[in-house]
Amino acid sequence: MTGVDLIIFGASGDLSARKLFPALFQLDRAELLPDDLRITAIARDKVAVDVFLDGLRLRMGHYMGGEAPTDSEWRHYSRHFQYVGADFSDGKNYGAVRETLDDTRISLFYLATPPSLFAPICNNLAEQTCLTGDCRIVLEKPIGECLDSSKEVNETLAKYFSERSIYRIDHYLGKETVQNLLALRFANRFINSQWDANCIDHVQISVGEVVGIEGRWSYYDRVGQLRDMVQNHLMQLLCLVAMEPPNSLEAESIRDEKVKIVKALRRIDVNTVSECVVKGQYTQGWAAGAAVPGYLDEAGCEQPQSDTETFIAIKAHVDNWRWAGVPFYLRTGKRVPEKVTEIIIQYKELPHNIFGDGTNIPNKLIIRLQPREGIELTMASKRQTLREKFSLQNHTLDLDFREAADMQRIPDAYERLFLDAINGDQSLFVGREEIEESWRWCDELIAACGQQNIASKPYHAGSWGPSTAELLIEKDGRSWHV
Amino acid sequence: MTGVDLIIFGASGDLSARKLFPALFQLDRAELLPDDLRITAIARDKVAVDVFLDGLRLRMGHYMGGEAPTDSEWRHYSRHFQYVGADFSDGKNYGAVRETLDDTRISLFYLATPPSLFAPICNNLAEQTCLTGDCRIVLEKPIGECLDSSKEVNETLAKYFSERSIYRIDHYLGKETVQNLLALRFANRFINSQWDANCIDHVQISVGEVVGIEGRWSYYDRVGQLRDMVQNHLMQLLCLVAMEPPNSLEAESIRDEKVKIVKALRRIDVNTVSECVVKGQYTQGWAAGAAVPGYLDEAGCEQPQSDTETFIAIKAHVDNWRWAGVPFYLRTGKRVPEKVTEIIIQYKELPHNIFGDGTNIPNKLIIRLQPREGIELTMASKRQTLREKFSLQNHTLDLDFREAADMQRIPDAYERLFLDAINGDQSLFVGREEIEESWRWCDELIAACGQQNIASKPYHAGSWGPSTAELLIEKDGRSWHV
Repeated sequence: MTGVDLIIFGASGDLSARKLFPALFQLDRAELLPDDLRITAIARDKVAVDVFLDGLRLRMGHYMGGEAPTDSEWRHYSRHFQYVGADFSDGKNYGAVRETLDDTRISLFYLATPPSLFAPICNNLAEQTCLTGDCRIVLEKPIGECLDSSKEVNETLAKYFSERSIYRIDHYLGKETVQNLLALRFANRFINSQWDANCIDHVQISVGEVVGIEGRWSYYDRVGQLRDMVQNHLMQLLCLVAMEPPNSLEAESIRDEKVKIVKALRRIDVNTVSECVVKGQYTQGWAAGAAVPGYLDEAGCEQPQSDTETFIAIKAHVDNWRWAGVPFYLRTGKRVPEKVTEIIIQYKELPHNIFGDGTNIPNKLIIRLQPREGIELTMASKRQTLREKFSLQNHTLDLDFREAADMQRIPDAYERLFLDAINGDQSLFVGREEIEESWRWCDELIAACGQQNIASKPYHAGSWGPSTAELLIEKDGRSWHV
Repeated sequence: MTGVDLIIFGASGDLSARKLFPALFQLDRAELLPDDLRITAIARDKVAVDVFLDGLRLRMGHYMGGEAPTDSEWRHYSRHFQYVGADFSDGKNYGAVRETLDDTRISLFYLATPPSLFAPICNNLAEQTCLTGDCRIVLEKPIGECLDSSKEVNETLAKYFSERSIYRIDHYLGKETVQNLLALRFANRFINSQWDANCIDHVQISVGEVVGIEGRWSYYDRVGQLRDMVQNHLMQLLCLVAMEPPNSLEAESIRDEKVKIVKALRRIDVNTVSECVVKGQYTQGWAAGAAVPGYLDEAGCEQPQSDTETFIAIKAHVDNWRWAGVPFYLRTGKRVPEKVTEIIIQYKELPHNIFGDGTNIPNKLIIRLQPREGIELTMASKRQTLREKFSLQNHTLDLDFREAADMQRIPDAYERLFLDAINGDQSLFVGREEIEESWRWCDELIAACGQQNIASKPYHAGSWGPSTAELLIEKDGRSWHV
């Protein structure tokens, strides 16, 4: 393999210290980084590489706690680094970047910057002849805030990079447990052969956070929970749950199947939005045992009348052969009672029940992505009693991945994603079409909400959204798992 | 309900002290016996009821250990009892039995006697006008030692009792975990919908005992493991695994489906027996850490050249729509390494494998009846490592029924069976046709072994039969689970 230069824009930002450099460090510790990998950190401060590294180590240590590098590990890790102190919003400063590049090696540009800088950086890189070699680019959400703006970003990228050289991160895809969805579905015939409308009654995907908007008020208020979480993370989970079996694990094969799901999502329009969407906004309440203010009382609130949703529940349908008639209930919110990401596969009832009333309790498969990654399968068995002839009870077969894994830690999403980007494997990155189709669906939903005046209903911080979110599923005779 | 008189012949026998009276006692302790149930114990000793009960309590205490009755429990239990001291092989003594009966109540005769006494007792009961009321009879294996002799027993029974009044015990059916097979199969759509030749590669049923023939040499040598274990217990397990879903839990519905399986068993004849049957006989070896003698060196050995099998492995087929092409591998033996009863459902491999060589590990469902009743489901999941992109590992979802049950003890088989017999529920008792069809199949297999001179191969005590038993399954590219 040709050597790789990893050039990180925004190297002194929060994401870099919290996720990116720790992930690279863990890869180095595990001896998974190519020996000749060069990491070029680019940030505004005009300091020497040692000064940058000293500061970085301090900040990383803060986040990594007991996993922080030892002195010798740090020495080993440091040798990959060079540092460019430059304001990269200014094209004049790219000479220094250019100097670090080597056209005989792969240049992997990582934009850990605000999205407003994506286009300027690309333009500057091109103008300053930084893109003459084998160049790839990695960037993270948000890629636009609607279909049009995401197209704009993608157009800019496409001017300088082929789709095969663009690595769009959705860090959910880097999570081990999310990838395990593929194993669960496609390595287990037992699961695989019952993954359709014949066997499954409905699917639930819940992504909850205990935290509020964490000082990002003005950004968050512009986007809301749908754009911030559904368009990307929940959509990715939905795709992995619903996709047809790919022919192989090749990136193209997986992406092809995923985009087919986004395209098959039934449009939620002005006629259906009232039945399919519930929005909520948290008011004061409780989080982790402490009283917390409502969304409109958060520090930084600029719009005391804001209707931005901090919670959304959606009843979605995938209109294809496999999923005809199977609703996908999605919900995600800030300030809900628990930090949780889980997928519930609710199987259908028995067609015929010989055990008497009240005993037709359908099987349920629970895929927990966090906390406590694992799967649970609920099953009925005979109650071991003589009092009734055949009374049933529900049992849960439980598999805790963290317990099951013979290792101390589960790798962080960014470790996987860095490794794949360095190795040129795109299978866990998001393709352009997928993103744009997802925006198309979300934009339509947002427009429909506007036309029907679907307002965000208040819910107390510490609850799972407004009571209408319960109604959304209960009117179908079903209920949320948690 | 009319009152019930339970009349136990052979009340001072080993089975009575070890199983029957403890089971009745447990039912009494749990307040599940009808208040007015009368238990008439019949045995040879001419003693008063108190003397009989004192002796019984002593013997029961020996078997029950910490579960033995307290004084007040024993007083409560004792009030059900009357005792008849009489030699019941002699018709002259049935006057005393007759005196205890009441034609306004149900008479439930329980024959805890050697099978040679089944016919004489029935004849005597009839001749001494003991069968004038609503009479039922309970008896236990062996019901014959071949088709002809079982027919003889059944004919005698049929002279005096309708099939609906005959309760043939196979105590395996009373085991909670065996009944749980019905719940597992028919209360779980997830299991139920994959229970056929499309999904299942093969089934294994293993019943192993660490003990040898335990002083029963002359009896055992005449029957061997096939007649002693396969004709009844393994056949019952096979039926419960293979039967079509019954329309209801009614006795007739379940029996109808079970007998269909016995009838669908492919005949093992002179042409196929060499491929489908392996017999073994243990030689000296080890059991539970102690050196033990071979079968022919056991105390009581009368035939130093005996070829009686103490182990048998059979490859069986159920020729119906559900199981076409799915082998059922059965094996059972004395002096194997562990006391175990388990059913293995081996699912088929994935039709297409995207995870690379060596990763197509089929799902397996293990139903453990003993020890540690429970079920296990093996599944593949992603190994949580970065070293390989998608390496799989096997996990086991485990459900231990004893842990899961919120109770100290699982009821013994005889408790269930007594309760059902008292309540007139035949669903867990074996019908005549089932027994006779099972004998027909076994007789044919035995005859074929004779014609082909299939001899019992030696195996060391403490091993799972002769090495040819491994070959039996390995020549099909499969292997025994344990």
